[in-house]
Amino acid sequence: MDELKISNIEDMAGATQATVRGRNQRLVLGLIEEKGPLSRADLVKLTEISAPTVSSIVDDLVAQELVKELKPGPSSGGRKPIPLKFNGLRGYVIGIDVGGTNIEIGIADLAGKFKERSTFASEQIGQGLTAVEGLAELTHKMIADSKVRAENILGCGVVVPGVTDVNTGVVSLAPAFGWQNMPLKDILADRLNLPIYLENDVNAAAFAEKKYGQGKEYSDFIFISVGTGIGAGLIINNRLHRGYNFAAGEVGYTIVDMDWIKNNGHCDKRYTQDFGCLESLASAPAVVDLAEELGLPEDFNSAHRIIAEAKEGNRSARQVLARITDYLAAGIINASLIVSPEAVFLGGGIFESGDILLEPIRQKIYLSSPLKLKLAVSSFGSLASLKGAATIAAREVKFTLLE
Amino acid sequence: MDELKISNIEDMAGATQATVRGRNQRLVLGLIEEKGPLSRADLVKLTEISAPTVSSIVDDLVAQELVKELKPGPSSGGRKPIPLKFNGLRGYVIGIDVGGTNIEIGIADLAGKFKERSTFASEQIGQGLTAVEGLAELTHKMIADSKVRAENILGCGVVVPGVTDVNTGVVSLAPAFGWQNMPLKDILADRLNLPIYLENDVNAAAFAEKKYGQGKEYSDFIFISVGTGIGAGLIINNRLHRGYNFAAGEVGYTIVDMDWIKNNGHCDKRYTQDFGCLESLASAPAVVDLAEELGLPEDFNSAHRIIAEAKEGNRSARQVLARITDYLAAGIINASLIVSPEAVFLGGGIFESGDILLEPIRQKIYLSSPLKLKLAVSSFGSLASLKGAATIAAREVKFTLLE
Repeated sequence: MDELKISNIEDMAGATQATVRGRNQRLVLGLIEEKGPLSRADLVKLTEISAPTVSSIVDDLVAQELVKELKPGPSSGGRKPIPLKFNGLRGYVIGIDVGGTNIEIGIADLAGKFKERSTFASEQIGQGLTAVEGLAELTHKMIADSKVRAENILGCGVVVPGVTDVNTGVVSLAPAFGWQNMPLKDILADRLNLPIYLENDVNAAAFAEKKYGQGKEYSDFIFISVGTGIGAGLIINNRLHRGYNFAAGEVGYTIVDMDWIKNNGHCDKRYTQDFGCLESLASAPAVVDLAEELGLPEDFNSAHRIIAEAKEGNRSARQVLARITDYLAAGIINASLIVSPEAVFLGGGIFESGDILLEPIRQKIYLSSPLKLKLAVSSFGSLASLKGAATIAAREVKFTLLE
Repeated sequence: MDELKISNIEDMAGATQATVRGRNQRLVLGLIEEKGPLSRADLVKLTEISAPTVSSIVDDLVAQELVKELKPGPSSGGRKPIPLKFNGLRGYVIGIDVGGTNIEIGIADLAGKFKERSTFASEQIGQGLTAVEGLAELTHKMIADSKVRAENILGCGVVVPGVTDVNTGVVSLAPAFGWQNMPLKDILADRLNLPIYLENDVNAAAFAEKKYGQGKEYSDFIFISVGTGIGAGLIINNRLHRGYNFAAGEVGYTIVDMDWIKNNGHCDKRYTQDFGCLESLASAPAVVDLAEELGLPEDFNSAHRIIAEAKEGNRSARQVLARITDYLAAGIINASLIVSPEAVFLGGGIFESGDILLEPIRQKIYLSSPLKLKLAVSSFGSLASLKGAATIAAREVKFTLLE
């Protein structure tokens, strides 16, 4: 295994806080998880860390039951090598995807595998602080009804459609729930009595794509989600890139209507039709607006419906999608020209049934840019962010067990 | 010093090839260079590397004369600590900025300080292979005429306005010199008998800004150059982000004219007015085109002239710049929304005299996006890329001395 591949294994979320010991632990555990079973000797060779240090790290991992020693393999002369395997059943985590339409809650093991999963309508939890209490209640009930024993649940990942400070656990802005500077982490930690790990929902989807999906193969990719809003999660140099103020990937705000900026368009008008940004022109609500504008029947009142009609051959519906294709292609081109990713993965409501959009977007990118990139629909569909929530929680729980 | 600051010191160009030993060497040398004088004990504390390893690394650095031991300081009980200082005069490098208008060549020490520097008109070296031979001749002459002894020159950094494979040393595409898949590194290495380090010119400017300029303070920033072309260099998580196929920062290709993409605009038409990308609408040639279009006098035939006239109050010239401001603001907003940098530095011909553009662009960004970022003109003006060329060569020479 060359160095490049090793760097693929390294802690993906950019732990600047980690000590050298911590980083080495994560590297060893990551290698066992990704490439195991591996022996101590394999690990020394792969990591270039000294044999005594590797042994001491492995001892810790085994003591914490994060790694299991399997039956020794055949000897190649000396002592028989003991294969080491990641123990995903060491514990469980809750994942919560707080979406604008649905709330997904699941219980997964430390290998990211869901044991249980439920969907709730977002409107049932309300807005503001009420919504936070509602989330806690739903989660409590899920744990109580679960076959997983509560004491084996070691953490909870919560992902939200908004700008999220992962350090303080405060959601700066999530309009869908009327949250502004909401200390979501502290409140949920109190109500659920669990460590809470917060993340932006699209970042989380990108993280899951990197850890378990098609993104495994790439060191640099962008995950773009097109639904009620439009956002992106960036994996750069194998790490989640959150950017200054945790605001990277705000592709929804990118300007695609030059007339708008020429006329001194103001960005506070987001979510109105006066806004010249990608989100106001190509999100799911924009699809509906455009259908209305083009005089489609009144009952073509959801993006899903319009996409379905287009699939059945409705010419007006196809016209709507052609326009959306132009905007989305421009957004993807512009984002990709900046970071030059190897791949772009598309998720969110629009792409759940949106394979009809994929090929036209691909052609437009090919025609109107010099980009050569893999373009594919997300590996985990509508569960991408939930998978991310569980993945992030599992990651943090593993690291906490090692401290 | 906390971990975050240490990570600021780590090798910025993303050396995935480095061994653990190599990485530790670079960290120690980087700390001495940046924060020195430091003692061995300081280094152990800062790096968390074991004392024997730090000692052995320092011994190597002293043996290679990259680090000098100063007079011991006062003892705090035990042996007196020996202050260690980076020795920038250990050797020299050539920097070459192969620009579309001018070629800049300089000789700098390993601390990035220029001893000598000359400017040549690009047209004098011609095109294609002839241009490569011309570059070699100019450089030969510069070395021969220099007070720096040839045997003390240890490497040469060459930066070009085009897509550059830094591993193979091949320039895939640099239209300014008619280079396509030009093996620039191999030819120059042969002619100059020096190790050659190739880089894209804007990446190099970003690298110099990070190492010696205002960029020192930031872990994430974008350097945008607006001249004959428009390009960007990205520092992400303290490293130069080159992207897939070394194509990151191709902001010149970003689409700002939606009508163009709607009409199936083809990106091969770059450098023609049919192209709806930022470069065709806001580069120095676009400024001249726009002036012509708006009926300005025929002798307003350079961006510099038009900017100068605008500064003197010419209303039509100001109208041209107002249009350019809109496009540039849109380009900067769109790039920044993707990576969320802490700062954007502006360089290239347009911004040498373009402080008149800075404030209007800043206002537009403030008005039309949620971004809060520092916007400033590059630290090194027209020498930014040359500084980068020398900086990159010095970096590689230091690492080679340690191998």
